[in-house]
Amino acid sequence: MESAIDTHLKCPRTLSRRVPDNYEPPFPMFVARADASLQQVVMAYFGVQYKQESQRAAALAALRHIIGSFDLADGPVRHDLTQHRDNEDHQNLMVVAYWADPAAYCRWLCSDEIKGWWDSDERLTEGLGYFREVVAPRVDQYETLYAFTEDFPGIGGVMGETSGDISEHGYWGSMRERIPLSQTDWMQANGKLTVVSGDPNKGGRVVIRGHDNIALIRSGQDWMEAGEQERALYLDEILPTLEDGMDFLRDNGETVGCYSNRFVRSIDIDGNELDESYNIGHWRSLEHLERWAESHPTHLRIFVTFFRVVAGLEKLRLYHEVSVSDGKEQMFEYVNCHARTGMMRDAVVPDVG
Amino acid sequence: MESAIDTHLKCPRTLSRRVPDNYEPPFPMFVARADASLQQVVMAYFGVQYKQESQRAAALAALRHIIGSFDLADGPVRHDLTQHRDNEDHQNLMVVAYWADPAAYCRWLCSDEIKGWWDSDERLTEGLGYFREVVAPRVDQYETLYAFTEDFPGIGGVMGETSGDISEHGYWGSMRERIPLSQTDWMQANGKLTVVSGDPNKGGRVVIRGHDNIALIRSGQDWMEAGEQERALYLDEILPTLEDGMDFLRDNGETVGCYSNRFVRSIDIDGNELDESYNIGHWRSLEHLERWAESHPTHLRIFVTFFRVVAGLEKLRLYHEVSVSDGKEQMFEYVNCHARTGMMRDAVVPDVG
Repeated sequence: MESAIDTHLKCPRTLSRRVPDNYEPPFPMFVARADASLQQVVMAYFGVQYKQESQRAAALAALRHIIGSFDLADGPVRHDLTQHRDNEDHQNLMVVAYWADPAAYCRWLCSDEIKGWWDSDERLTEGLGYFREVVAPRVDQYETLYAFTEDFPGIGGVMGETSGDISEHGYWGSMRERIPLSQTDWMQANGKLTVVSGDPNKGGRVVIRGHDNIALIRSGQDWMEAGEQERALYLDEILPTLEDGMDFLRDNGETVGCYSNRFVRSIDIDGNELDESYNIGHWRSLEHLERWAESHPTHLRIFVTFFRVVAGLEKLRLYHEVSVSDGKEQMFEYVNCHARTGMMRDAVVPDVG
Repeated sequence: MESAIDTHLKCPRTLSRRVPDNYEPPFPMFVARADASLQQVVMAYFGVQYKQESQRAAALAALRHIIGSFDLADGPVRHDLTQHRDNEDHQNLMVVAYWADPAAYCRWLCSDEIKGWWDSDERLTEGLGYFREVVAPRVDQYETLYAFTEDFPGIGGVMGETSGDISEHGYWGSMRERIPLSQTDWMQANGKLTVVSGDPNKGGRVVIRGHDNIALIRSGQDWMEAGEQERALYLDEILPTLEDGMDFLRDNGETVGCYSNRFVRSIDIDGNELDESYNIGHWRSLEHLERWAESHPTHLRIFVTFFRVVAGLEKLRLYHEVSVSDGKEQMFEYVNCHARTGMMRDAVVPDVG
């Protein structure tokens, strides 16, 4: 048994855990480990939005262009593709890309090719929407959790190594306690989402400013290799409740502090669906995420099912990664997206006094 | 908004809460308050056990004898009566009595009348079982929680006063945080339940020694004054799931650290059922109770229903009280009870080496 918090990230606590140090979890779970040289990562979600099915080919081409740009100098370490129908019934293709070095990301982002393409007036006239939602948490600002030990998706794939059984799981509050910063910091939200440029209701280019400690969860399910029984477990037993919960957050997120919630399906480069999905949720704070997860019937049902089956899982892969980030390490930009896209929905227009 | 921990019981924390101080609960709840002169209370459960329905009259007479003895000098401040069918299908009548002064309880317990009756050989030959399960928590070792503000049952009735809206509720871990001792102490179990006198399998007189921080929960429902809609809410929606959970703990408590669980129905002095019930659960520690409550499907279902309806409750009264106690402040004694009664089931016989 080891701590989810890697040894080099341990520090003297000013905030205690909610369970004693001799707590023993009811089943084994694992986290990703990285070399101590890893200090900060970048999680960048790039989206292409379209309304009409007839635009799909163009949207896929745009997505492929973005993916192609990853081959430029200082591109991401890894990426994966998804699609989802959003809260306004628009279709969205997304690629999430991970960098292990914010400086490299910065050079990539500011390169002529990337900057030129994003800033080009062509983006305003193609009839497609685009967005970039990027956070760059330090290693003490995120956690991972896997019910398996190999080929980690997402940020775990960037980190590269696997822990042994970890102690901080199986109880409410363990997510927070896996984040190293929780040793000394409540990670509370400050400020509000703010429109700093453009007007969401007019389309065009919009920039939203975030705030400290927006929480981002990627919570995934991979049934690619699952046998018949585990496919049925996922598709018949877990998925319907999961969809109820995700629909609730997509449509009622404002009421619980969830800024944006997308339940996305993995796709290949041609847009074909894969047997993998995940949820991408942006929350006002970790605390808001905790309160919802601990009290909403749909999430509690998923939790109960997970508890019941996790020890017997073979090929059905369930995992999540959760981060908080500093406001200055966030970027939320939209081009021609509908006004309820991503962080735009809950952003306030500042008083010009 | 005020803290569940009364001002005179606040102390510098060595253990932090799991939510920040600016946490706001989703609905109002209340705790009992007592004068600062109250230092320690006694919660004493006296039981009469019988197997055959034909013994009921004798058992009720025995219960009435016990209740009559409360009128002796130094008797309890208040008491209430219940019945339940137990894990071996025996019937049990219980009276719980509360003292606000352990010294008074001690004098009452050691009086000739009480001691003489309990120690009498007649208790061994009447064909009835008897038990006494008593804990004496200090005021920093227990908490209460009510969805209403008047005529508190149980220990709240002894304490006499009512708080305003309290902060520590509506999240997992709040039970612990309402107990003043949680500011500085994990309240962990030490030792085991131990048979110190007699042999549970032989019947007769048995004394069980407890250990520090056994947790005792009384969790109640009172639908006496409830209108048609709230009766239906309780009887049709809450009760079936509650019974599932209570049956699980009664029959499988060993697996989760629940020493004893009795879902009891309130009765009047003649043995007639009242529209009131509660659960009496003894747990190895608060932590064991927390883990079960936070993960068992039945309890999560109850929790979800409670969250949904609590703000609208009018006459349906839901509450609980939870204590931990020092091992030296516990007494578990059995006369002629079956071997799975109360603390006997999980008690170990010490090696005589």
